[in-house]
Amino acid sequence: MIDYTGSYTDQYQMSMALVYFRQGTAENKAVFDFFFRKLPFDGGYAVFAGLDDLLDILEDLRFDDKDINLLEKNGFPGDFLKYLKEFRFRGNVYSSREGDIVFPARPVLQVEANMLEAQVIETLLLNILNFQTLIATKASRMRMVAGDRMLVDFGLRRAQGPGGYYAARAAVVGGFDATSNVRAGRDFDIPISGTMAHSFIQSYDDELEAFRDFATAHPGNCVLLVDTYDTLETGIPNAITVGREMEERGEKLKGIRLDSGDLAYLAKEARKQFDKAGLDYVKIAASNQLDEHVIKSLNDQDAPVDLFGVGTSLVIGRPDAALDGVYKLSYANGKPRIKLSESISKITLPHRKQVYRIINDKEEWIGADAVALKDEKDFKNIHNPFEPDKSMNIEFFKKLPLLEKVMEEGKRTAKKLSLKDISAYRQQRMDQLPWEYKRFINPHIYKVGISDGLKAERDKLIAQYKKR
Amino acid sequence: MIDYTGSYTDQYQMSMALVYFRQGTAENKAVFDFFFRKLPFDGGYAVFAGLDDLLDILEDLRFDDKDINLLEKNGFPGDFLKYLKEFRFRGNVYSSREGDIVFPARPVLQVEANMLEAQVIETLLLNILNFQTLIATKASRMRMVAGDRMLVDFGLRRAQGPGGYYAARAAVVGGFDATSNVRAGRDFDIPISGTMAHSFIQSYDDELEAFRDFATAHPGNCVLLVDTYDTLETGIPNAITVGREMEERGEKLKGIRLDSGDLAYLAKEARKQFDKAGLDYVKIAASNQLDEHVIKSLNDQDAPVDLFGVGTSLVIGRPDAALDGVYKLSYANGKPRIKLSESISKITLPHRKQVYRIINDKEEWIGADAVALKDEKDFKNIHNPFEPDKSMNIEFFKKLPLLEKVMEEGKRTAKKLSLKDISAYRQQRMDQLPWEYKRFINPHIYKVGISDGLKAERDKLIAQYKKR
Repeated sequence: MIDYTGSYTDQYQMSMALVYFRQGTAENKAVFDFFFRKLPFDGGYAVFAGLDDLLDILEDLRFDDKDINLLEKNGFPGDFLKYLKEFRFRGNVYSSREGDIVFPARPVLQVEANMLEAQVIETLLLNILNFQTLIATKASRMRMVAGDRMLVDFGLRRAQGPGGYYAARAAVVGGFDATSNVRAGRDFDIPISGTMAHSFIQSYDDELEAFRDFATAHPGNCVLLVDTYDTLETGIPNAITVGREMEERGEKLKGIRLDSGDLAYLAKEARKQFDKAGLDYVKIAASNQLDEHVIKSLNDQDAPVDLFGVGTSLVIGRPDAALDGVYKLSYANGKPRIKLSESISKITLPHRKQVYRIINDKEEWIGADAVALKDEKDFKNIHNPFEPDKSMNIEFFKKLPLLEKVMEEGKRTAKKLSLKDISAYRQQRMDQLPWEYKRFINPHIYKVGISDGLKAERDKLIAQYKKR
Repeated sequence: MIDYTGSYTDQYQMSMALVYFRQGTAENKAVFDFFFRKLPFDGGYAVFAGLDDLLDILEDLRFDDKDINLLEKNGFPGDFLKYLKEFRFRGNVYSSREGDIVFPARPVLQVEANMLEAQVIETLLLNILNFQTLIATKASRMRMVAGDRMLVDFGLRRAQGPGGYYAARAAVVGGFDATSNVRAGRDFDIPISGTMAHSFIQSYDDELEAFRDFATAHPGNCVLLVDTYDTLETGIPNAITVGREMEERGEKLKGIRLDSGDLAYLAKEARKQFDKAGLDYVKIAASNQLDEHVIKSLNDQDAPVDLFGVGTSLVIGRPDAALDGVYKLSYANGKPRIKLSESISKITLPHRKQVYRIINDKEEWIGADAVALKDEKDFKNIHNPFEPDKSMNIEFFKKLPLLEKVMEEGKRTAKKLSLKDISAYRQQRMDQLPWEYKRFINPHIYKVGISDGLKAERDKLIAQYKKR
């Protein structure tokens, strides 16, 4: 939907790129890590999403004529613009699998490219991965509490502009079944779902007449909105009337939707009335300011809701609305690189790295990931990167490597997966994540440690910089 | 940037459209109101934004081949698809001016079109206006406290995907001066601003060397990031060294950027050191988790900051992240229409309407807008739409109409304004808004009342529906 070109970036990337170009370092090798520092929603995990879109965009990324004209207007010199016209992303990308469960402070993805290319793509990469990871995580929380009920994204109208398009995709990664967003459904092959608005009922003099017309036009897919005037007094009785008329025609009313009031109470009343009327197959959909907490509460009350339509809280990732992912240089011009900070939690991890999930001999996750030097073979301990005295012996556990090469010299090497496959992988990984990390209230803190070798290298670099 | 087509909508719009098409009501006249219920940020006002984009999109809106194919795949019948292929938006739009100050419960914009067209555009309209109004409002709060300092959007990396593109535009409506977002700058003609990242400094063995190379490549626009290793110990001293070297070449160091630590303290120290070094023209930019409250605090402390770079809190509109704008039917099939609700605040306002700002004979805003029937000439009172006993006599005040025709039969009639003009209008209107409505803590509540005539019509309709 979006024409991503080189100008989908921050101006400072272009300013820096010019210096690299001038200094002859533009094509020196660099390594950047994508990671985040804080889990969203006060939760215990995040679901990684957006990788497939990122790879597609990187493969085709160019500066188009409009981009070049703008940069020229802003004073960038001709030889540099000529170079940018030939710009392609030709780097390697090592990444966690889309749908995997990821944690703070460890690389989720690593870019290995020439300095200029790696720098120019920073903004785009963060823009895509931060947002989709946020939304997939939010969606996965709803999936946890919704059990096997249907979850449908209704959020486009309150989304942050075209952010709603990617929110619909990320919601499926996180466990949603369908979307009301026709464009996202079209482009991402997501099942599309939709019924009627209050305006439809209002446009008639009579609710029953509106229901009848809808049933006539949509005999196979008739879901009636019952709360325009009075849910119990008119909406449900009129829906029952139409349901019976449909039966007489050999059709079946598919469902009703509740969009206001006490959803638990109304769902139970609706269920009773439909069952009593012999229409026990009619499904009940609920919407209106839902989020994982409301869905959990409805299920705790045994509300007989078959489908939850979730809007704003899903597509904007309420209340956080942003993941704080960053993209930090760890290697350049032949040397490991570090960023210092007064806050130890902001000191970065140098070098090319691999990330491992630590599992026991029953293949169970023990609740720790390890970040090691890429070529470090056997490390025995992991160390808390921010509290140097805390460490843990892991020599008797297995280590499952998590970063795979997904792009080589600008061409994707990872197989293109369907959203269904990505979502299934997320479910498989969620099933492996112990419950303590999934609960909403005070989840257990998953450990992320750095290996013996990485710790030694980082300590050495810190000491070098402090000495200056 | 986005190819808006008919599929940028919710599926239920298409389901309803089919019924209108089948029943022969598709081309009956309908009127919808866009309004919101709650002001964002616990503030006292909102800044309306997004209109110009909406009008551009409506003028060109079509169902393209991919859209038609998808709808066909999803079971929509051939005669309806043929009709959709000819779809154009041919309605009238009456709107508040972009950049005007707007309030809850009153129409911000009114669409008068045939039922099918008015329905199909709902999702798109809400998606655009809700988000840009949210962000323009957020930006205007920062403009209020920033005084004449520069405000620059740095948010694309944490934005909700391509939402960041429109956030950059809406920020300018709200009072921002520039953006780091190259694409938004290119397409919306916004000044682009950018310096360097930590990765640039890190890629060198030596901070001073990095600064020198940057100054060489950007002699006219050199802003140095001084906090990669130690702001006071190395960053500022190295920047002073480069500043002096630039002077020797007849150039001038433009500024430095502080991106961590105690910004008030560091800005004061930096100012002192640069002034002492004879570099009193060097500007100080500050970034890192800024919002209107931090900017206000920095200014309250007299921090000598010349430019604020604002990222996440601006582009996602933290903490609300969504405006709750809705689009409600008020007239259809020859009659005024209403939606009832158990909650009186959700009962809609029927009929075509005009909105007036109430001003006194000195042209000062008295803190009230009136919603009246479109052809209602002289009304004397306005009534609280949710608390029927509260009313106010306004016969001795002037009434300034706020909704203007901006589109007629699908063609825009409003002049296309530059972002600069829209922003200037916002500033003019903000200056007219009394201070009590602008303060951050417990702002005064602006009154929105309905006219005598509208009240009578609404009461009549409510009574009619209740009787059934």
